[in-house]
Parts: sequence; structure tokens; C-alpha cells
Amino acid sequence: MKRITLGHGAGGTLTSDLVRQVFLHHFMNPYLEALSDSAVLPPGDGDSATSLAVTTDAFVVTPIFFPGGDIGELAVFGTVNDLAVAGARPAYLTASFIIEEGFAYADLDRVAASMARAARRAGVQVVAGDTKVVERGSCDGLFIVTSGVGRLIPGVSLSSARVLPGDCLVINGAVGQHGAAIMCARQGEDFGTSIRSDCSPLAGVLETLLVELGEGIKWLRDPTRGGLATTVVELAESAGQCVVLEEEAVPIPDDVCGACEMLGLDPLYLANEGKVLIVAAPEATPRLLALLSEAGQDQAAVVGQVATSQGMMGSWGAGAYLRTRLGGTKTLDRLTGHQMPRIC
Amino acid sequence: MKRITLGHGAGGTLTSDLVRQVFLHHFMNPYLEALSDSAVLPPGDGDSATSLAVTTDAFVVTPIFFPGGDIGELAVFGTVNDLAVAGARPAYLTASFIIEEGFAYADLDRVAASMARAARRAGVQVVAGDTKVVERGSCDGLFIVTSGVGRLIPGVSLSSARVLPGDCLVINGAVGQHGAAIMCARQGEDFGTSIRSDCSPLAGVLETLLVELGEGIKWLRDPTRGGLATTVVELAESAGQCVVLEEEAVPIPDDVCGACEMLGLDPLYLANEGKVLIVAAPEATPRLLALLSEAGQDQAAVVGQVATSQGMMGSWGAGAYLRTRLGGTKTLDRLTGHQMPRIC
Repeated sequence: MKRITLGHGAGGTLTSDLVRQVFLHHFMNPYLEALSDSAVLPPGDGDSATSLAVTTDAFVVTPIFFPGGDIGELAVFGTVNDLAVAGARPAYLTASFIIEEGFAYADLDRVAASMARAARRAGVQVVAGDTKVVERGSCDGLFIVTSGVGRLIPGVSLSSARVLPGDCLVINGAVGQHGAAIMCARQGEDFGTSIRSDCSPLAGVLETLLVELGEGIKWLRDPTRGGLATTVVELAESAGQCVVLEEEAVPIPDDVCGACEMLGLDPLYLANEGKVLIVAAPEATPRLLALLSEAGQDQAAVVGQVATSQGMMGSWGAGAYLRTRLGGTKTLDRLTGHQMPRIC
Repeated sequence: MKRITLGHGAGGTLTSDLVRQVFLHHFMNPYLEALSDSAVLPPGDGDSATSLAVTTDAFVVTPIFFPGGDIGELAVFGTVNDLAVAGARPAYLTASFIIEEGFAYADLDRVAASMARAARRAGVQVVAGDTKVVERGSCDGLFIVTSGVGRLIPGVSLSSARVLPGDCLVINGAVGQHGAAIMCARQGEDFGTSIRSDCSPLAGVLETLLVELGEGIKWLRDPTRGGLATTVVELAESAGQCVVLEEEAVPIPDDVCGACEMLGLDPLYLANEGKVLIVAAPEATPRLLALLSEAGQDQAAVVGQVATSQGMMGSWGAGAYLRTRLGGTKTLDRLTGHQMPRIC
């Protein structure tokens, strides 16, 4: 009998297959089929209103408190960021809590306080909630599911269909910190690193970019589960373009590299929760980098491009490729198997 | 150290305390403070649009397949019904799945198919989702969290502030079936009852009532966790009125009564998922009952009223009371402790 494996939840190939074979198959509708982080919905009948963006995420991260954040903050920022990369201004969150019998009341209070702080920082309100308690052993401590509702920023049109040869791939800072922080925290204190999650809200800076650069911004996605590499694969597939990631250009902190070497992980596949991959028109890219720098995102960098027919990669056809540090080029794949369960 | 108990999730006194002490305390805002099943949110800046209603619910029911429904159908109807009792027309759902490693792929497919059928029946689309898989033993099979977005039906103003002495309490059918079906299913096949959950969508019939009766409908709530009794207590507290439930008038099927006697349960505290408690102006009540009957809700009944100062109860002050079958009157309390964990 076919059974669900940890890989089905890892954000890579198996997750993608499961979503298509089960959920898309049954729920088929154009909003879900876009397979983006948020569904963008039309205004209602007779509304002159803006479109809505809606998203949901389940958070099962372990440990629930980790260097640089906790499950509550992660839930708020993760949901806000999914709205932000859809070009929406986050407005409202809902939060459902599934709690194991015996969970410490003080820890729940600490998580709720952290969510409230995160919500204030991100400019959203938690307007509805639900609480379920299951018997000891029926869940692992605390799971939180947040959903978000936002309103599309007027004039924004983000779409992989607008991604064209020559466009630049920009990341707003160093990658791998959230995933590395969780994996190191699981090793215990003796592991001796001080890597902190990059968990932070993106909505403010993305709204600035969208307003300032308009159509110069083509596509946004936050590289969470599956990491930057999987996000680049999704971009290439969705746009039907040849997309090249330059390994050497990707900012990865030394301590993240060190931890990855010890733990046998690839930082390009590590989850982030304060990062966004931006596809920008080449002429908009210098101003984009300047705006990111002004916003304090000082490790922002161009990490790749959509290949043109004139360049070396022109004849390679659609797909995602990695130009390695050593100068070789290889096909980039989605995360396969389960590099890291319960990272978010 | 204070710890979370099953009672904190049962929908009664402990749940209410937890929500106030932890979640309301930290997330404080007028939408959440209403403590209704859905938050009703204003249209956005410059919108001429209708208000939105937003809700969320976690479903941890066990067993996941039960007579009359399954966790997927329950999630869809539960969420749709929370929007409907807020006076909204349900439009969109999101669904997050937390799945235990080793869960049968075919069962997940069956649940998704059931959700899709339920969504079609309720006229909503599942527009966004998320899937997480946790290690064997870290959750019990499958949890589903659904959130819903609806649009307020124009002209509707439901509020406990509009509930006045003389108003009638109407239930749309027999109570206790969902809770009894789950509890009997847990006893195994030998238990020998054939009680089926009443799991069904309310949005269509409630929209008809609201459009036809307008301000004649004062307040709506679906008596899920905590049952009809807890809902009446919530009504009395929220309205600041003396509310009397007539035990003899409450339709309870014989098999539900029988199962309750064997299992030591009180049917007034059993969860429902296709029932609604309606507070109506006395002059609207005959037409309300006729409309419910036309909609096939043929066990609909007046089960109580808001006491007037002329009546026997007039001097008792605000609160919820039960006039028992034997003619006595007692204070009605919320569910205390955990009559039934994981009923939804």
C-alpha cells in the first residue's frame, strides 16, 4: 500500500507530485492551479474593490523555540510573506492551534505573545482563531496553522509569463540561515554554532519595490521549504525559460557553510524565512539593488539571470541550471527526499 | 507548572478561559473580541465593496471516517457554517493538511475527494493549501485546518445586542447526532447503533432566511463543540438577557437518547455540524418555521425564548436557564471538563 512519507512534506519533487495527484486533481480551479504561495481572487460581484490575496500555511517546526525566532513568529512572518510575494498588502490573519495535552501553559503564552509582536511588526491583525487539544502522544507539542488575507497593491502585475530572457535574479540577502539554525538547534548546545534564523517580514520592503519599480519587477517568491534551488526550478518551469543560478554569487554566511559541511546539507536547499527571490527587468536592477540597500538589505545580490539566445546557455532550452563555483554547469533539480523534516 | 488539558479544547469553560487569558490578551482587537465564529471585517480603503467574513477551524476528529461523514467533509461544512452564521455567503476556503508519516495515500485521496464534493455542494472553492508531513508518532493520522472567506449578505445585521425579551429560540432540527455518531463509532461495530452525523452545509438555507425575514432574524450560532446548551449560555452572556431553553421542546432522536444513556452523556452538550440556533423576533417566527419546513428541515422547533419581565422568569436576571422535562428550572452552564475530546 502506498503511504505518505516525510518527503511528501519536504517541499520538493514528492510534495509537488502529491499536490498535483491528490489536491489539484480533486479541487481543480484556476486559483489553486496557479500553485503560487497565495491565491489571487477577483473582487466580488459589483465591487469596484481591489482583488484579494489568500494564503494558508501549517507550522510544525521543531524545536518550537530556536535561535532567532519561534513557531509563532515563524507562522506570522511566513504567512505575511506569502501574501507579500503575491503583490498584496497583508491585512488579516487567522490562527488555529493544535496543542498536545500536557503542553506548558507558559510556553503557549510565550508563543502567543511572540505572534502578537510579529503581527504588530508586520502590520496585521489576528482576527479569528481556533484551539484544539489532542491527547498526549497525538501531536508533538504545538502545531499552528495561519491563514492570511491581503489586498493586492493597485497596478501590480506579477506573473511568470512576464519573465523574459535577460531578466535578472536578485536575492535580498544571505541564504540558508533559517534551515541551518533549526538543524543546529536539533544537535543540541554542544554543536557550538550561533546561527540565527532570518525569520522576518518582507511586506514593507516589497511594497516599496513594487511601487517604485512598477513593471520592472516581474516575479517574486520566498524560498522557504526546498530553498533557493527549488525556487529557481519552479521559476524556470513556470516561465518556460532557461534560468541560470550563479553559485558563486549567492551570499551564504561562513557559519552556514561550516554547519552544512558538518551535517551534509546543501545550503541552496535550506529553507529561508526572510528572503525573497526577485526577477527584475535588467534596466530596473540597479535601482532595485539601491532600494534594497536603503532598506538595510545590504547583502542583496544578483544571483543569476534568464538566459538570452545570444549567450552560452541560449541553446540549452527551458530549465534551471547551476553555474558552479568551478565554472561547470549542471541541471538544477528540486529538493528530492527529505533533507530536513519539520523545518517550518 | 500549569499545563494544557483536554478540557482546554472542549469548547466549554476552560476553552473560554484559555482564549481570554492567552489569545485575546495578546492579540487584542475588536474583530477577535467579538468572539463569534467568524470575524466580520470592513471593506478596504476606498472600497464600495461588501464586508468580508473570515474564519478558521482545526479538525482533529477521530476516527477520520465515521457514519455520516469524514474529517474532510466536516472541515468544509464546519467552515462554511461558521461563515453562514455570521450572515455571510461563503466564497473561498483554504486547507492545510498535517499528515503523519505512514498515512495511507488512498485515505488521503478519499478525504480530498470528499472535501471537493462538500465544497461543490456548499458552493465554495478551495483556493489555497499547504501540506506538512510529521514523523510517525508526531501526529495522529491526519489533521485538517480550513479557513474560509465570505462576503456579508447586504442588509444583514446580526448582533446579540438586537436580542430582546420575547424573542424566540429556534433550532433547525434534531440535536446530538454528530457527537453521538463519533462516540458510538469509537465503541466499535458491536455497539450496534446506526446514528449518523448530521454534517451538512447551512449557507443556502440561512441565506434564504436572512433575505426573506431581514431584521426578523437577530442572531445565529451553530452549536458545535459544547452543544446546544453551551450555545444558549453564550447567547445569554453576550446579549445580557435571561434566556430559557425548554428541554421538552428540543428534538432529540431516540437512538441519540439511548446512546447517551449508555455512555453517560448529555445530548444538550453534544456537538452538531448541520444545526443552527436562530434567535428570531416573535412576529417572524411562524414564517421562519414555514421556511425551514420548505427547505426540508422538518424537525425545526421553537426550543426556548428570551424571558420578558411579565413572565415567570422576568425577575431572574440575565443568564441561561433550562426548564426541565419535570417542570423545574435550573441554571444552564457551559460544558465543563472534557465530555468528548476530538469530536471535530
